[in-house]
Amino acid sequence: METFNFNPGPTALPKEVLTRAQQELINYQNTGLSILEMSHRSKAYQSIHENAQHSMRSFLDIPDTHEILFLQGGASLQFTMVPMNLLKENQSASHIVTGSWSQKAYNESLKIGTTEITASSKESGFTYIPQKSEWNELSENTGYLHLTSNNTIYGTQWQSFDELPDVPLVIDMSSDIGSRSVPWEKVALAYAGAQKNIGPAGVTVVIIHKDVLAETNENLPAILDYKVHANKNSLHNTPPTYTIYILGLMVEWMIGQGGLPEFIKRSGEKSSLIYKAIDHSAGFYSGHAEKASRSQMNITFNLPSDELSKAFLQGAEERGFVGLNGHRSVGGCRASIYNGIGIESCERLVDYMEYFKQKHA
Amino acid sequence: METFNFNPGPTALPKEVLTRAQQELINYQNTGLSILEMSHRSKAYQSIHENAQHSMRSFLDIPDTHEILFLQGGASLQFTMVPMNLLKENQSASHIVTGSWSQKAYNESLKIGTTEITASSKESGFTYIPQKSEWNELSENTGYLHLTSNNTIYGTQWQSFDELPDVPLVIDMSSDIGSRSVPWEKVALAYAGAQKNIGPAGVTVVIIHKDVLAETNENLPAILDYKVHANKNSLHNTPPTYTIYILGLMVEWMIGQGGLPEFIKRSGEKSSLIYKAIDHSAGFYSGHAEKASRSQMNITFNLPSDELSKAFLQGAEERGFVGLNGHRSVGGCRASIYNGIGIESCERLVDYMEYFKQKHA
Repeated sequence: METFNFNPGPTALPKEVLTRAQQELINYQNTGLSILEMSHRSKAYQSIHENAQHSMRSFLDIPDTHEILFLQGGASLQFTMVPMNLLKENQSASHIVTGSWSQKAYNESLKIGTTEITASSKESGFTYIPQKSEWNELSENTGYLHLTSNNTIYGTQWQSFDELPDVPLVIDMSSDIGSRSVPWEKVALAYAGAQKNIGPAGVTVVIIHKDVLAETNENLPAILDYKVHANKNSLHNTPPTYTIYILGLMVEWMIGQGGLPEFIKRSGEKSSLIYKAIDHSAGFYSGHAEKASRSQMNITFNLPSDELSKAFLQGAEERGFVGLNGHRSVGGCRASIYNGIGIESCERLVDYMEYFKQKHA
Repeated sequence: METFNFNPGPTALPKEVLTRAQQELINYQNTGLSILEMSHRSKAYQSIHENAQHSMRSFLDIPDTHEILFLQGGASLQFTMVPMNLLKENQSASHIVTGSWSQKAYNESLKIGTTEITASSKESGFTYIPQKSEWNELSENTGYLHLTSNNTIYGTQWQSFDELPDVPLVIDMSSDIGSRSVPWEKVALAYAGAQKNIGPAGVTVVIIHKDVLAETNENLPAILDYKVHANKNSLHNTPPTYTIYILGLMVEWMIGQGGLPEFIKRSGEKSSLIYKAIDHSAGFYSGHAEKASRSQMNITFNLPSDELSKAFLQGAEERGFVGLNGHRSVGGCRASIYNGIGIESCERLVDYMEYFKQKHA
């Protein structure tokens, strides 16, 4: 049976990427070795490592002002590393809390230094991104503003970074990196676990402004120090070599498909298709997120009753749709449509949504 | 050309493991998905995760008193996590420094709390493991004794854990886990990056006594807190799913070969073969490590001159031997003979060593 992978991450990788990985698994480019068993100091791996960095830079249009690091530990480790490295003693970190993950980023930052909530949509059940008019004023000693650009669980997304105040930005882009453009000149640091839009689980991409890097805090544990990783080109200790290889294949594949502009376009088209099915369902499907804050990556929706939701999910599973259940803290359904999932899969989902509605409305 | 992988890590995985990984890469057990794109919350992955834990427990004979965690960040992150979690305010960590990695473990621990060097072989160029007679007395408030059971760079190894004092042990077993038995009742915590004896790079195995776990320090960053990981069965955040899958295949393969007793035996045989070639070379080859401290995992040796070393390494490369160059801090040659490398590869190396000696002695 054909499978349509709508998982919230780790999630769909294109067939081309998987096929190439399979072909190269045992004997990588006539080295006689698998990348799984290859020294991270070997020429072949060095080239994989550097190509992955170059591809990321080219795909995301990252200027030379910023360094690209490949780290381990997921976005969750960045919740600690960011304030450890960036937050000065006399400063405060300003957080905008728009979901469970940004709540965690705030909680962890509090353990390291002064941290404030500048705005939060928690009381509404995280159904929207707070507009600037409802923010608290930023402290004078704000070191940086932390935000989560897309909220995987609630299906909300910052629609634009244009209106943001003129302070250094730190952005958790785990679930929308590679699907939108980024005003790098405003970004002190962006981070993303790879396992949604750009690769498999086990590597975190950190993009850090060189000026920020030059002024990170001193005397940190080496493994938690951005400078240490940057000085060694992310080879301070053994990197997750195979994971970085697959990330490289995925980013190369995206470049071959037309690059970032193409994936911005596809994200718009794929999400519109499903939101249209929701909005034209005469209330049978209802979106969780407010329209003005809708995510192009994670589409959260409900059916008229828990029974219908359950029947919908069961029928979906029988038809090869994988990962459509909503997160336990929201319930209902969620379609995660990252870069590895094609528009045809979204069309198939919409067909099923129509069919199910006609049968049960 | 056939390749013989003597890399110090990441290093050789058995053909059976690689072949199975290749077969299962695109469609894992008829799920229609690759493990590379599979949710860590899916049934299929849950089973991979738990099987890998069970296999580790069975292979290493780990009793129920200890918890097994799969973390990220390598042994290098453990240098920080161990003292953060285990070292109490009124305690001192005692370190035995036997090489570059144990030196790093000491340096990083110093950043977290009181840390002492109980013994060191640094002045001798790390050619041996210090005997108990030359240790400083342990402080009364010693929280634990940290040692590196095998020194990858210098080719030395603790021959036994029997003579160790009656304090909780913390052991970095990155380069000999799975090749020796461990007195678990003495072990507070053991850790190992997987990429030498038990799998690919990108996952770190931490084996921690439950009594120690119950008393770790409070208010740590969640991602650096052993309790958080243990409570969530290493699924607090997205684990490096594919890497854990390959680790599971490798450990299963080792069990199928006869388990730990078999790999203890093989390590003895493989290393004896090469040490014999060194010792019977009438001084043409000379070992770096003192005989009483020789490693069964990493065999460091020199030739009579730098020119001969260079010629030896070049000829080796031409014959398909990979990774035989010594670490830059020691020079010369090093044969790393982890569990993924068979005795035939060691025999081939010994043949080449004989040939080269006869040609150049």
